[in-house]
Amino acid sequence: MRYLATVSYDGSKYNGYQKQPDGNTIQNQLENCLERLSSSPVSVVASGRTDRGVHAIGQRIHFDLDMNITCDKLKMAMNSMLSDSIYIRDIQEVPNDFHARYNVKCKKYIYKINTSEYNPIMKDYIYQYNKHLDIDLLSRALKLFIGEHDFKSFTSADDIRDNYVRTIMSASIVSLDDIVSIELVGTGFLRYMVRNIVGTLIDINEGKIDISDIENIFVSRDRTKAGKTAPAQGLYLEEVFYE
Amino acid sequence: MRYLATVSYDGSKYNGYQKQPDGNTIQNQLENCLERLSSSPVSVVASGRTDRGVHAIGQRIHFDLDMNITCDKLKMAMNSMLSDSIYIRDIQEVPNDFHARYNVKCKKYIYKINTSEYNPIMKDYIYQYNKHLDIDLLSRALKLFIGEHDFKSFTSADDIRDNYVRTIMSASIVSLDDIVSIELVGTGFLRYMVRNIVGTLIDINEGKIDISDIENIFVSRDRTKAGKTAPAQGLYLEEVFYE
Repeated sequence: MRYLATVSYDGSKYNGYQKQPDGNTIQNQLENCLERLSSSPVSVVASGRTDRGVHAIGQRIHFDLDMNITCDKLKMAMNSMLSDSIYIRDIQEVPNDFHARYNVKCKKYIYKINTSEYNPIMKDYIYQYNKHLDIDLLSRALKLFIGEHDFKSFTSADDIRDNYVRTIMSASIVSLDDIVSIELVGTGFLRYMVRNIVGTLIDINEGKIDISDIENIFVSRDRTKAGKTAPAQGLYLEEVFYE
Repeated sequence: MRYLATVSYDGSKYNGYQKQPDGNTIQNQLENCLERLSSSPVSVVASGRTDRGVHAIGQRIHFDLDMNITCDKLKMAMNSMLSDSIYIRDIQEVPNDFHARYNVKCKKYIYKINTSEYNPIMKDYIYQYNKHLDIDLLSRALKLFIGEHDFKSFTSADDIRDNYVRTIMSASIVSLDDIVSIELVGTGFLRYMVRNIVGTLIDINEGKIDISDIENIFVSRDRTKAGKTAPAQGLYLEEVFYE
């Protein structure tokens, strides 16, 4: 039986999503848990990896289990075995040809920035920019990312692939109690793409990049033309949507 | 010269405020920092201790330093030396007879409760109650704590002292995005007092204690009559007020 699960995790407690020999990754934790439960090796496939320090509210994973157990009981069993920094929010049965990565329709990311003074309590959960952000300016800049673009300038320089074209369906920025939240919904995201877009917005805020440069940055297909990479701790994989 | 500083800290990273031989407390960190700066022993006096796991947004401390340094430079020096889980928000000079504990006029505490599903990302920062709270009911209950009362039933059973009378000036409860915040302002708080009041509210929510019992709980002066102690992680020392 194939299962699709929704998972939240605190990215500050692990070395990223993807399995590593040291074992302290989300994928290791999930696979170890399922292997102990089912007494056989289990592969967990996520909608995509999240980098070290990046959090997930609604990461999605699929896996195959040959056990006679209801989804509710499986959820309870997994949550009782997993560390309290990972939580299975939901489990449902899916057809055997469902794939947590290939079937993704779009994803929603949120990036949180503290524009007020340094907050030691939220340092791992909100990027501590600690300076004013010009919301009107950044809102206008953000609109230029909506639609279909070649995002080669906004991905990791060592991310080599054939096609860097992705579509951003919506992009918004709101400010509440000095916390600025940038929300992006898109068909797919390249490595560091959200963090590089946010870093570019911050460079725009600081006058290092002008809004009128954005079109040229897209055309250049050159990572060095876009802004810095914003830190991992502000980033949340909020939701993954399927057909 | 005597200084008064405002300090924020992440209580989940330390064994409480008060100095201990193992050294991993807020007071140890602050005194070590000031001793390295001034090359002589320094005693730090806080407005009051916070227990293990309790956070501070606006804890206040005073200390004496015999250095020729401006408040701004001292703040910068301390923040550069302290761990990133403690932050000095403000430093000002005060008269030599100012005392961070004796001169307290009142304090504001906030207790945060997640009534929605378990959140692994905020587990150390919001109490994960994960059940509905009846805000109207608890708002009515909370009003009964306002004013001058003998809080012996609401302090740690081993807190032996002459006088348990304290005054709560204001008490409110609000709900935003499934996070319930209870705010208490009072002239002084006994050990565990906020957490025992919150625990009593939770017992009221669950029907284990009736609102009409509260008056009798005060009169009984018996810790076993009040509710359980709510966990430390939801509690924030928000602000300390002086004359």
